Amino acid sequence: MKEVNVGICGLGTVGGGTFNVLTRNAERIAGRAGCRIRIGRVATRTPRDDIDLGDTPFSTDIADVVNDPSIDIVVELIGGYDTAYELVMSAIRNGKHVVTANKALIAMYGNELFEAADRHGVNVAYEAGVAGGIPVIKAIREGLSANRIDWMAGIINGTGNYILTEMRAGRAFDEVLKEAQALGYAEADPTFDVEGTDAAHKLTIMASAGFGVPLQFEKAYTEGIADVTPYDIAHAEALGYRIKHLGIARRRDNGIELRVHPTLVPKSHLIAQVDGVLNAVLVDGDAVGQTMYYGPGAGDEATASAVIADIVDVARSVAAQSQQRVPYLGFEPDAMESLDVLPMEDIQSAYYLRIHALDRPGVLASVASILSEHGINIESIMQKESELEDGRIPVIILTHTVQERQINRAIEDLESLADVQGHVIRIRAENFS
Amino acid sequence: MKEVNVGICGLGTVGGGTFNVLTRNAERIAGRAGCRIRIGRVATRTPRDDIDLGDTPFSTDIADVVNDPSIDIVVELIGGYDTAYELVMSAIRNGKHVVTANKALIAMYGNELFEAADRHGVNVAYEAGVAGGIPVIKAIREGLSANRIDWMAGIINGTGNYILTEMRAGRAFDEVLKEAQALGYAEADPTFDVEGTDAAHKLTIMASAGFGVPLQFEKAYTEGIADVTPYDIAHAEALGYRIKHLGIARRRDNGIELRVHPTLVPKSHLIAQVDGVLNAVLVDGDAVGQTMYYGPGAGDEATASAVIADIVDVARSVAAQSQQRVPYLGFEPDAMESLDVLPMEDIQSAYYLRIHALDRPGVLASVASILSEHGINIESIMQKESELEDGRIPVIILTHTVQERQINRAIEDLESLADVQGHVIRIRAENFS
Repeated sequence: MKEVNVGICGLGTVGGGTFNVLTRNAERIAGRAGCRIRIGRVATRTPRDDIDLGDTPFSTDIADVVNDPSIDIVVELIGGYDTAYELVMSAIRNGKHVVTANKALIAMYGNELFEAADRHGVNVAYEAGVAGGIPVIKAIREGLSANRIDWMAGIINGTGNYILTEMRAGRAFDEVLKEAQALGYAEADPTFDVEGTDAAHKLTIMASAGFGVPLQFEKAYTEGIADVTPYDIAHAEALGYRIKHLGIARRRDNGIELRVHPTLVPKSHLIAQVDGVLNAVLVDGDAVGQTMYYGPGAGDEATASAVIADIVDVARSVAAQSQQRVPYLGFEPDAMESLDVLPMEDIQSAYYLRIHALDRPGVLASVASILSEHGINIESIMQKESELEDGRIPVIILTHTVQERQINRAIEDLESLADVQGHVIRIRAENFS
Repeated sequence: MKEVNVGICGLGTVGGGTFNVLTRNAERIAGRAGCRIRIGRVATRTPRDDIDLGDTPFSTDIADVVNDPSIDIVVELIGGYDTAYELVMSAIRNGKHVVTANKALIAMYGNELFEAADRHGVNVAYEAGVAGGIPVIKAIREGLSANRIDWMAGIINGTGNYILTEMRAGRAFDEVLKEAQALGYAEADPTFDVEGTDAAHKLTIMASAGFGVPLQFEKAYTEGIADVTPYDIAHAEALGYRIKHLGIARRRDNGIELRVHPTLVPKSHLIAQVDGVLNAVLVDGDAVGQTMYYGPGAGDEATASAVIADIVDVARSVAAQSQQRVPYLGFEPDAMESLDVLPMEDIQSAYYLRIHALDRPGVLASVASILSEHGINIESIMQKESELEDGRIPVIILTHTVQERQINRAIEDLESLADVQGHVIRIRAENFS
């Protein structure tokens, strides 16, 4: 049986998981790959004594992996931007295939890396970068290759989903975040997770794989969950909706929508039932309709599962000496689509609005008339008489789908009404229909 | 750009969908495959005037496709056993790759077909045979290739799931079945769907792909849903469970469990929320944990989506002239596992039991003592005093996981009690933990 040599760079959570699973399931994996996957070298600056490397060659300098002529596939699991970029670029220049779990690296520098990989005739695979162990990139690029992908919507950050799930019990964001940190679900600096940057990295990659457009992370709209309140969660529930932090990418005639924000989704839809730290990605294709992929979005061996699936795919093509790989972004470069990312004002969505109005006759009529002037139809409206406070009543409105521009203008007009106090709370909503 | 020629045999629901999607998305599909997929011939005994074949060569004899030297891939969409077997075998003998949606054919004759395909160096692909448009075979064979798959559980028959979903409203099986037939969800002869044969075909294929064992349809245990009553559905709900018609394949140390039957699943689990005609497959791997794949299990273009994904995969390897394909059953032949299908008596499951007991002192004690004698622990027990009728009371029990042999023996003893009347109703239960 042929042998393919991999070099693992980084021995943290995912690196350790990858080493352990590759070792434990070596026979099984060889039976699937049609070749033996040998760990030719492991490199890490911070060795671990809880992992038995046996007689695997070991270095504290990751350059040793890239310069080792016996290594066919470099597995980049060090994370971050700069060193990872240098590592991957050198591997490509040395004619080595690359497997990475680094979503930030691919989202920011993927276009350059894929271009270099094409020139050097090597693969760059990144399944583990999106939704951890769920093979969603494979589903999008291969399983649904018959389809025009129309949209994708994903719960692609476990920390955020855990926090929103716990907030349904009426608990405040700050309190749940602290708990998530104590449980190890959230980092000490939770910015990337709760502000949506991590989800935007993954969404950028999914959109490129599904739509066949270049990676455009800098154009993704990102809104976090820190402003979501138990009050709005409860009122969304009363309207039949659940608030999820979704990454949404949608193909439109004149461009693509690329946005991460808190979103109301119908409770009856399966994705609304995905709770806790789990991830799920919903994909709509013109032939298949809606399919959903669900599972762990993080964790040592779950992420390793995706890293190794990529290694097996690459190893199979190395063993076959075939260049007929699946294209990086789901499309051959000359078949890529020229769709730009639309500005947020041009996206289409339904909206949940919460207005604090003075309890005076005619307030509802003025609100309804402003929405109507802006061409906005109302799906439901709730006036919470029971919550009258300081002479103000919350008015909660769910609109039909309109352009974000229309809502922005309507909100300006609503906020200028003498009977409306403070800011209008706005959360986007999707019906997936 | 290279061209790969496919010949479509059969122009029914899936054949028509495949022709239409291949035509409509031709550019997109070529961009993904790295080669042009040309429909070189369509053959059907029953032409359709609602599909515009344009100048595609057309035959009423499917042998024309198999004998056409320009055809690289034969797409078998005629269904059934005998003619389909002859067609696929001749295609293989003529050195052509095969893509099929025919689960019955693969479940019954797959071992022979794969063996012949290996001898002739061609592929036989069958993604569309399991769970329609959901790319679950790709997930199992490729996306989870790092894992020892421990078990799979699927809602893999839409008709059955539709019926059980509607029965939750208290409606009887026969009534809902008639409605499903009127809506076109169920065939005039619904036997294959409601008795579980169709699900057993799909489960057999999944088990072989996931565990790397030969296809053993004849050893699958199959129990239909005709005996499920609204009464038991309601009581399962009261216990926190939903009844689903599941196909379950589980790896055990001494063999595999392969069984289709009504099953109680916890309402809190995502798979319990999959309603109507939709399909979902839950896969547990030792590295990744649980992942789930959800979507349409039938339909013209949904199934075509899976057929075409297979065509693209095969076309990519044809264009590369590579024999380094993904192994048929997820494993190279010499790495296959020698696990036998266990007899039903040896499977492990939890159980829902409904006993009709005379309302006499000591009945509960005798029941509990019989279960205890057989080593069966009770998770919960409900005695429905309010339903006392003719001096009989229903006693509902949910057990912990035991061997089916233990339950069979306990039921025999229970039925021989003077205070127990009629048969004990038994439905299996799974906690997926």
